[in-house]
Amino acid sequence: MPTCEIITTGTELLLGAIVNAHPNYLAPKLLALGIRINRVVTVGDDRPAIEAAVSEAINRADLVIITGGLGPTSDDHTRDVVAELLGRKLRQDDAILRKIHERFRARGFEPPAAVAVQAQVPEGALVLPNDHGTAPGLAFDVGAKTRAVRLGGPVEPAMQRLLVLLPGPPRELKPMFENHVVPLLRERGFVTAVECRAWRTVGTGESVVAERVEPIIAGQPDVEIGYCARPNEVDVRLMTHGPRARQLADELGARIREKLGDIVFGSMDDRLEDVVVRELIRQKKTLATAESCTGGLLANRITDVSGSSETFLQGVVCYSDDAKQQIVGVKSDTLAAHGAVSEPVVRELAEGIRARAGSDFGIGITGIAGPTGGTPGKPVGLVFIALAGPRGTEVQRAVYELDRETFKFVVTQTALDMLRLLLRLRSLVQPRLEASVFQMRQRLPH
Amino acid sequence: MPTCEIITTGTELLLGAIVNAHPNYLAPKLLALGIRINRVVTVGDDRPAIEAAVSEAINRADLVIITGGLGPTSDDHTRDVVAELLGRKLRQDDAILRKIHERFRARGFEPPAAVAVQAQVPEGALVLPNDHGTAPGLAFDVGAKTRAVRLGGPVEPAMQRLLVLLPGPPRELKPMFENHVVPLLRERGFVTAVECRAWRTVGTGESVVAERVEPIIAGQPDVEIGYCARPNEVDVRLMTHGPRARQLADELGARIREKLGDIVFGSMDDRLEDVVVRELIRQKKTLATAESCTGGLLANRITDVSGSSETFLQGVVCYSDDAKQQIVGVKSDTLAAHGAVSEPVVRELAEGIRARAGSDFGIGITGIAGPTGGTPGKPVGLVFIALAGPRGTEVQRAVYELDRETFKFVVTQTALDMLRLLLRLRSLVQPRLEASVFQMRQRLPH
Repeated sequence: MPTCEIITTGTELLLGAIVNAHPNYLAPKLLALGIRINRVVTVGDDRPAIEAAVSEAINRADLVIITGGLGPTSDDHTRDVVAELLGRKLRQDDAILRKIHERFRARGFEPPAAVAVQAQVPEGALVLPNDHGTAPGLAFDVGAKTRAVRLGGPVEPAMQRLLVLLPGPPRELKPMFENHVVPLLRERGFVTAVECRAWRTVGTGESVVAERVEPIIAGQPDVEIGYCARPNEVDVRLMTHGPRARQLADELGARIREKLGDIVFGSMDDRLEDVVVRELIRQKKTLATAESCTGGLLANRITDVSGSSETFLQGVVCYSDDAKQQIVGVKSDTLAAHGAVSEPVVRELAEGIRARAGSDFGIGITGIAGPTGGTPGKPVGLVFIALAGPRGTEVQRAVYELDRETFKFVVTQTALDMLRLLLRLRSLVQPRLEASVFQMRQRLPH
Repeated sequence: MPTCEIITTGTELLLGAIVNAHPNYLAPKLLALGIRINRVVTVGDDRPAIEAAVSEAINRADLVIITGGLGPTSDDHTRDVVAELLGRKLRQDDAILRKIHERFRARGFEPPAAVAVQAQVPEGALVLPNDHGTAPGLAFDVGAKTRAVRLGGPVEPAMQRLLVLLPGPPRELKPMFENHVVPLLRERGFVTAVECRAWRTVGTGESVVAERVEPIIAGQPDVEIGYCARPNEVDVRLMTHGPRARQLADELGARIREKLGDIVFGSMDDRLEDVVVRELIRQKKTLATAESCTGGLLANRITDVSGSSETFLQGVVCYSDDAKQQIVGVKSDTLAAHGAVSEPVVRELAEGIRARAGSDFGIGITGIAGPTGGTPGKPVGLVFIALAGPRGTEVQRAVYELDRETFKFVVTQTALDMLRLLLRLRSLVQPRLEASVFQMRQRLPH
């Protein structure tokens, strides 16, 4: 398996106000090709620091990807430093310069003189076209590393190392990686016989997921499993190596998928809200929401999905008792008898918003996000979530002891997951059995 | 100025599903003490990789902070690796072990045998108590680095280097850093005579901000300025060194603050929503929102602020024309004559939600988030934002050509900022002049 190091450059990354998101984009893309990141290094826009980081990395790894520092300003050093380090002269590439100038003129600007530096290409470098900006990427074949060969072991062919320079802005880096770096990695033999299968799960913890998966892969050679846990979500990733990689991945993958059952909501590119909105649209159903403690996060997540206007009719955020009564029609008697955070109120929220919006489904949420507002009988973290549909209303009660923002996220996860499971059931059993949603759920593979 | 390197350990950080947030927490805290991070390195839970990273860092930097790998499981290596690297024997600290055992028993669990490893302390290490978990942190004085002394230059006293090991979980790391590492850094002389002032600004770009600030600091010795730009926000950070650090920071800081004017919304710990909610509560005013294209993000940001229930009465997300009419009372004539994305509709949204909720202020938002839905007259990115108050309604029209999620964020920034400026004006001019908000704003220092 080839080794990889990432060097992200940019003084702003060392000041703390920006999250360094490039490794998070690159890691799963590389893993899917069988390339593992061994180290990530971040340095500022500083020539000696970049030089040190690059020369260390190239002595350790088969593939080094450097991001940032390809722009036209005085703190962009990467192109220069790498050319000097590799002993390659820079020369102007007229085709690139023309393309950069055209890009400016198409936007009605005269190109500033400083942009010319972006058309400088080190000798022997491969140019990676930038379809979304001016600075092209660069790739360098830097020869084989001397490998220690174990006596009597198989003699591995020495791998040609590759150094790749990508622009810093994500909207330039991402398409360049997909369209130009991935094909190059395939061509240069970096993509090994590795198969990768991944599933995203919701609603349970890492240990439960591991308990289902581990017996399937126990003792299997050429197989790796990885978990990544976030609040209320666990990703499972299966990787297989060797000549039987594809077969192993298909067989074990099918068994893992079956064993995980309906906690799987999608593949690595899916967010839970994507899956739910897609399924609502497919089933031609509409949704409305009435949120108290999640304060609009559920509506916000749903409307992050492009096309959600086809299915999402309306959402209301009703923090106060007045708002619950006025805009969703919760009865003052119910509020007085049970309090705002209660099963009867959450039912009226879900059923009320469904009726007022005229939607197929209504979701109601009421709870205590904290950090203040708890009482002995109703602690901070208590929440009721209701899903009202054509065949009735389902309610979940939970206590999530989490900070305010994580609480809001986990509650909306649970709400989206209730809807996901109901939609899945509808597509499975249609439509007579739908009345007994809750009982059915118990019988699904868990 | 002492140099610092951060080593974050954890295989999960190399798999891409988790954002490495420790540098973002540590960088501004260290900067405020006059300590600059020169490099961040991330390696997996792998002994040789950790060892290599630590030994490299300790040869370069005055302060090395290592996070993660102090737990009780088989992939926690940091304590061992560092002890071995420094040639320090491990011995069990009975007081720590007792504290760990008590922590378990207080929660009703019998402590597992594996936790004992967390009470192992390398010889000569300082123990940093963990008030929120079991694994204590550790600090090592590792002697002075040999410094090159320039001939004829001042002989700098050699700085004693420090190696600090912190636990990975943020809720353990953060209080340990504040309560135990910062005092240690002061004691060991790492905190230099540096003063730091910082402001967060909204609504303008980096170049505009720099244009206002640069003339003030041009040619000043012992002064550094840094900018950090995010969509619609720019942070400005002033640092001063030397014996006059405090005086310089006060003088230049006052001039910068004045020149930046009302684009400054707060200091580094404030989010825009914090400032707005705080000011609403201080002025005892209430708010309601009616969002179309931002889909609940505005309500969500407001309700991320603890205590927002005091001021935020209700929010509605009305994607469809029906919802705009039904829950906010937008007239069908207005929709028919001008379309949903128009100034008359946004006025009716803001004024309608204000009237229905009985709030002091109402915010209405309607626009085209994209990527689809644009027309020649109304392009993707077009948005109208209205703020209705007791003295009238102010409308802003803008076109933000951004991806869907950034668009939603920037639009809510603009809406929050309109409210922030109005609240500021109210507190300045009270209350007769408030009718001419818009004209007044032109006269504020810009």
